[in-house]
Amino acid sequence: MRLDDADLLKPLRRQAAGIGIGECVPDASKGQRPLSPDGHLIRLLLASLGSPPLRFTLWTGESAAGNGRIVGGFRIADRSTLLKLLINPERYFGEAYSDGAIEVEGDLVKLAEAVYVCRREPLTHYRGWLIRVAGWIGRGRRNTLSRARDNIHHHYDLGNDFYSLWLDQQMSYTCAYFPAAEMTLEQAQSAKMELICRKLRLRAGESVVEAGCGWGALAIHIARRYGARVKAFNISREQVAFARLRARALGVDGCVEFIEDDYRNIGGRHDAFVSVGMLEHVGPGHYVEFSRLIDRCLTSNGRGLLHSIGQVQPRALNAWIEKHIFPGAYPPTLREMVAILEPQGFAVVDVENLRLHYALTLAHWLRRFETECGRVRAMYDESFVRTWRLYLAGSLAAFKTGELQLFQVLFSRASSNDVPWTRAYLYGR
Amino acid sequence: MRLDDADLLKPLRRQAAGIGIGECVPDASKGQRPLSPDGHLIRLLLASLGSPPLRFTLWTGESAAGNGRIVGGFRIADRSTLLKLLINPERYFGEAYSDGAIEVEGDLVKLAEAVYVCRREPLTHYRGWLIRVAGWIGRGRRNTLSRARDNIHHHYDLGNDFYSLWLDQQMSYTCAYFPAAEMTLEQAQSAKMELICRKLRLRAGESVVEAGCGWGALAIHIARRYGARVKAFNISREQVAFARLRARALGVDGCVEFIEDDYRNIGGRHDAFVSVGMLEHVGPGHYVEFSRLIDRCLTSNGRGLLHSIGQVQPRALNAWIEKHIFPGAYPPTLREMVAILEPQGFAVVDVENLRLHYALTLAHWLRRFETECGRVRAMYDESFVRTWRLYLAGSLAAFKTGELQLFQVLFSRASSNDVPWTRAYLYGR
Repeated sequence: MRLDDADLLKPLRRQAAGIGIGECVPDASKGQRPLSPDGHLIRLLLASLGSPPLRFTLWTGESAAGNGRIVGGFRIADRSTLLKLLINPERYFGEAYSDGAIEVEGDLVKLAEAVYVCRREPLTHYRGWLIRVAGWIGRGRRNTLSRARDNIHHHYDLGNDFYSLWLDQQMSYTCAYFPAAEMTLEQAQSAKMELICRKLRLRAGESVVEAGCGWGALAIHIARRYGARVKAFNISREQVAFARLRARALGVDGCVEFIEDDYRNIGGRHDAFVSVGMLEHVGPGHYVEFSRLIDRCLTSNGRGLLHSIGQVQPRALNAWIEKHIFPGAYPPTLREMVAILEPQGFAVVDVENLRLHYALTLAHWLRRFETECGRVRAMYDESFVRTWRLYLAGSLAAFKTGELQLFQVLFSRASSNDVPWTRAYLYGR
Repeated sequence: MRLDDADLLKPLRRQAAGIGIGECVPDASKGQRPLSPDGHLIRLLLASLGSPPLRFTLWTGESAAGNGRIVGGFRIADRSTLLKLLINPERYFGEAYSDGAIEVEGDLVKLAEAVYVCRREPLTHYRGWLIRVAGWIGRGRRNTLSRARDNIHHHYDLGNDFYSLWLDQQMSYTCAYFPAAEMTLEQAQSAKMELICRKLRLRAGESVVEAGCGWGALAIHIARRYGARVKAFNISREQVAFARLRARALGVDGCVEFIEDDYRNIGGRHDAFVSVGMLEHVGPGHYVEFSRLIDRCLTSNGRGLLHSIGQVQPRALNAWIEKHIFPGAYPPTLREMVAILEPQGFAVVDVENLRLHYALTLAHWLRRFETECGRVRAMYDESFVRTWRLYLAGSLAAFKTGELQLFQVLFSRASSNDVPWTRAYLYGR
């Protein structure tokens, strides 16, 4: 079986097509008419973005388009927004979109993809250097215990009512795994948990520690399906409360302990260490500490799995996402992930890149979010709806274009021969 | 299916047991008799090695043993050998064994394993620092075009007659892949080539470039089974001559071009880049150059696979192996392998660690070598036989104890969606 782009992403595209926001406005060509000063500025903006195939239209009706078949456009409400976009489009685009100072013409996902594809070209212009410098400054900031708590509270304590509108029933808020692309999100989230448990070869009675457990879906899955004892750490109060209730309702609260504490306070020795979607919040300044923690808490035959959003080259998280969605977050490269394991002498057993599965997961989330956006608006406001729409659509585009990656890294002690002979058992062979 | 150490390595152990060299001499305990000065030195030697469970016996009959259940021992012929072992056991053990100044009592593989397991403890004594410094000095030496040719000639041009005594019929001299541990070596080498081709998803008519092609088995396999055109580079004259003859005999010389040239002279654009067992000879000083080469010769949808011996922490190759077997070689860590791909924006799609498959491959080679060692002795001499026996047995022990690892790293352009949806297709699903 070999799947190419067309086959792979058919369901994803169908879903993405269903969430077109606004309507594509036909090109009101300006012919040979001379450009206004603002018209020159949108051309400059387009050029600095690498001339993506989209159209910027000004409050005056004047417009300019990038190269190639135009996929849609953005309507800019005023000069102040235009100037901000010129200074730092990565940050101000999101703010202007959330405030309604930018309107989208066409499919937001396709537009974001177009921007990411062009951005991939080397950043040779002035802004490339600004972004890099900002990135390195950002990397220096440390997620202390109290800052980490603030960061996590900012995002994960928005309210279980909000997340339950568009996540699956078990509230898994990380990349799902779709053995078949047409699976439901619920099935794919269960398949992801099964994949992780099978990679870790969990056995009844073993002790498992989870760093960053979200709403507890994986910890509960491990206890119910594998009969292992789980200690699951999380600093989001709302999530821990939900996880405890769910474990009690399912009768596994004797096997799973949800601990409202920072991963740095994990103690004891365990047969397996698992962390799904938390490394993004650790920050490079804490990788050495994280490395020592894993070493300290794993037995000699222990196995570990790190599941994290990643990227191919080190670069600060999108400035708008970092400010408004995930403060303190940084997606590591695979080299940085592996470098966490090297000093302690862990051997990487297996790495799998699930990037396109995250694109499909996000397509599911975005579709559900759009279906429920009336309720979200009632709970918060229009600006909140637009912020989250842009975050979900932009993330979908980032995974689809390779701007972001998703790595699952399985490891053990270098000398442990308690490793599977081949990976066929993961695929039912 | 879950296999633990006992199941996995049963066939390997059976083979290893068949190659015991010499006989285990019973312990001639020295009771409370005071130690001679030489006796103190062997205790010091044992302590500096981390007290592995083996016995050193001197020319005087005096002996000392490490901790734990003794697996065998070494008989040291004279004081000069003992002193050399104290200075640099890693290097001089091999030389003394080859010269007959050390005799083995018991199973050489088991003894080497015992040494590796103890060596894993942190190198806190004086020699640890010496080894590290030597390692860093070694890493600085560059494999220039002419030095690379000398290095490769040293090992690979020993003569096809020699290698054909103990390699498989296709002359694959890299880690095989045993989907079932009881497979023959011939089957496992074919399975390895199939695994690589399937990971790369090769299609008829595609262009493939191979950096370091050995005796041409993989290049010929690709042309015959996948109908792709292959350009295969190698600087070993003997190997290239063999590969060309074999391609002609099999009627694929129109599709496979064997080029006697350095990998640095690879040109053109190709759909796939593959390198199996060559990265070890590149050397860290040339990784940037290697990185640029891969970027230059891959199309936008191109796929690549690096297959290399590796290790979990950066450390110079065993000094004796580097001097007598593989001059200029260095096994990278996975971090170093991934760092080759990062600057060019490649995304790692999949990493598989085949360490135990290399242990089993080496068990096959060693068994064949022992069967044919009379012929090897006739072609060369006893010292050559002992050198190669130690190299094969020591390598087997190194892979079995995790001292060495084997990484297969599959990659593509970060943005390419021409990647498989899951890995199930590799396992016939």
